[in-house]
Amino acid sequence: MSHFLNQIEMPVRWADIDAYQHVGNQHYFQYMMEARAQFLQKHMGKGIADYLFILVDTRCNYKKSFYYGETVLVRQFLLNLGNSSFELQYLLSTPEEPDIIRAEGYAKMVCVDAKTQRAVRVPETVRQTLLANTMQA
Amino acid sequence: MSHFLNQIEMPVRWADIDAYQHVGNQHYFQYMMEARAQFLQKHMGKGIADYLFILVDTRCNYKKSFYYGETVLVRQFLLNLGNSSFELQYLLSTPEEPDIIRAEGYAKMVCVDAKTQRAVRVPETVRQTLLANTMQA
Amino acid sequence: MSHFLNQIEMPVRWADIDAYQHVGNQHYFQYMMEARAQFLQKHMGKGIADYLFILVDTRCNYKKSFYYGETVLVRQFLLNLGNSSFELQYLLSTPEEPDIIRAEGYAKMVCVDAKTQRAVRVPETVRQTLLANTMQA
Amino acid sequence: MSHFLNQIEMPVRWADIDAYQHVGNQHYFQYMMEARAQFLQKHMGKGIADYLFILVDTRCNYKKSFYYGETVLVRQFLLNLGNSSFELQYLLSTPEEPDIIRAEGYAKMVCVDAKTQRAVRVPETVRQTLLANTMQA
Repeated sequence: MSHFLNQIEMPVRWADIDAYQHVGNQHYFQYMMEARAQFLQKHMGKGIADYLFILVDTRCNYKKSFYYGETVLVRQFLLNLGNSSFELQYLLSTPEEPDIIRAEGYAKMVCVDAKTQRAVRVPETVRQTLLANTMQA
Repeated sequence: MSHFLNQIEMPVRWADIDAYQHVGNQHYFQYMMEARAQFLQKHMGKGIADYLFILVDTRCNYKKSFYYGETVLVRQFLLNLGNSSFELQYLLSTPEEPDIIRAEGYAKMVCVDAKTQRAVRVPETVRQTLLANTMQA
Repeated sequence: MSHFLNQIEMPVRWADIDAYQHVGNQHYFQYMMEARAQFLQKHMGKGIADYLFILVDTRCNYKKSFYYGETVLVRQFLLNLGNSSFELQYLLSTPEEPDIIRAEGYAKMVCVDAKTQRAVRVPETVRQTLLANTMQA
Repeated sequence: MSHFLNQIEMPVRWADIDAYQHVGNQHYFQYMMEARAQFLQKHMGKGIADYLFILVDTRCNYKKSFYYGETVLVRQFLLNLGNSSFELQYLLSTPEEPDIIRAEGYAKMVCVDAKTQRAVRVPETVRQTLLANTMQA
């Protein structure tokens, strides 16, 4: 399963550039986090205040650098929807060359009860939202 | 003198948000730096490789917070053009309410000879560019 | 008035280094913020939950760069204690050469009632703490 | 194979704290990068100017949060030494409770010829340094 969820465009900031004149490796995780935050804020904002979605595992595979002056296109996919967790995939490229993948990322989110802090089943509304907002990539 | 130079829009990133749920104070300097970097890159890119522009003084006056979901509008002005330096002013607001100033900033740049690392007169091409790209605010 | 409050040492992180191979200008504000946060956390932690201390103005004057491998020594001074605000001064150097000032900073904090969000008189306990923890620099 | 290479201690900065009051997930990669940078700078600094070590893959598994006031202990291990690459493992905890692992990380570095930008065999001096500086964990 690999369902397209959403995509965002983020201009590279001068502050993202490191001593090697390209985007520093830790900033790729900011870009992925932003795609996640925007999706959660837009689509899951209401009726899920009792739940938290916590990042437990994340990965980035670097293929080609980003430079100042470029814009990062982040496409987010649902890779797997489990009982109390879901897995996301990220493809990072540019709007000009969306199919030249500069980096590929991964994140695993666990759904937690805000009161007990224990992992619980991803609620139905979220399951439906995740699936409703997806289309075959 | 207060001449408008350029303006940029920067979406607030989730990574800019601090423990008080608003944009952390140090990120305002990223926003101002970005307006500066984009202007320098666009308008001063050629024929000035022998010079460096170094930040020697910067300031931010905070009036009202920025939050996640907002976009920062940064307007940059030339405040003063000296012999070997120039001073810039920044007004930070949002595209929706450009006249409600959330923060006001300042930066003083010194022009340095790339070889000798000594302060030198701002070259004519840069002086003309700074003035040509300005209009009364 | 310029009373010494506290000092901290912060190793420069690789992530602080920018495209010019030295510490990026916005990170100096992290270093100053850290001296402030450690002082507030240590000396003002109790009995002042009803108050917030908000940064309203900050400045940095750059004299000499910091590089990777160095440690930043931040010394914080009370510059002025007003009715609802206080002003702080920062001297940034290194433990090896504490008197060679690489940067000088400034911050103005306003005391705010946590409920009403209005500026109020800095409470007596904080006034005493600020003065008790100071000595002539 | 899992050989201990080095360890560093990094105080959590206020700027590392996110809206959930704990260290934001992307900063863990700063901590790991720092252990890597310090090891490379200290042990591999000379005679390898013709080579670059490039991060191609990195991962972090989050178990328990870090908070402001804590210090992060990063221990770095050599996991595998290949022909043109090597793999590193990271255990993140605190000096007070070194065996309570808060996060576990991974990084794969590729050795590249600085001129041709092509992957080349990790040079003998680096192989010896990596192995000489290791001991069974």
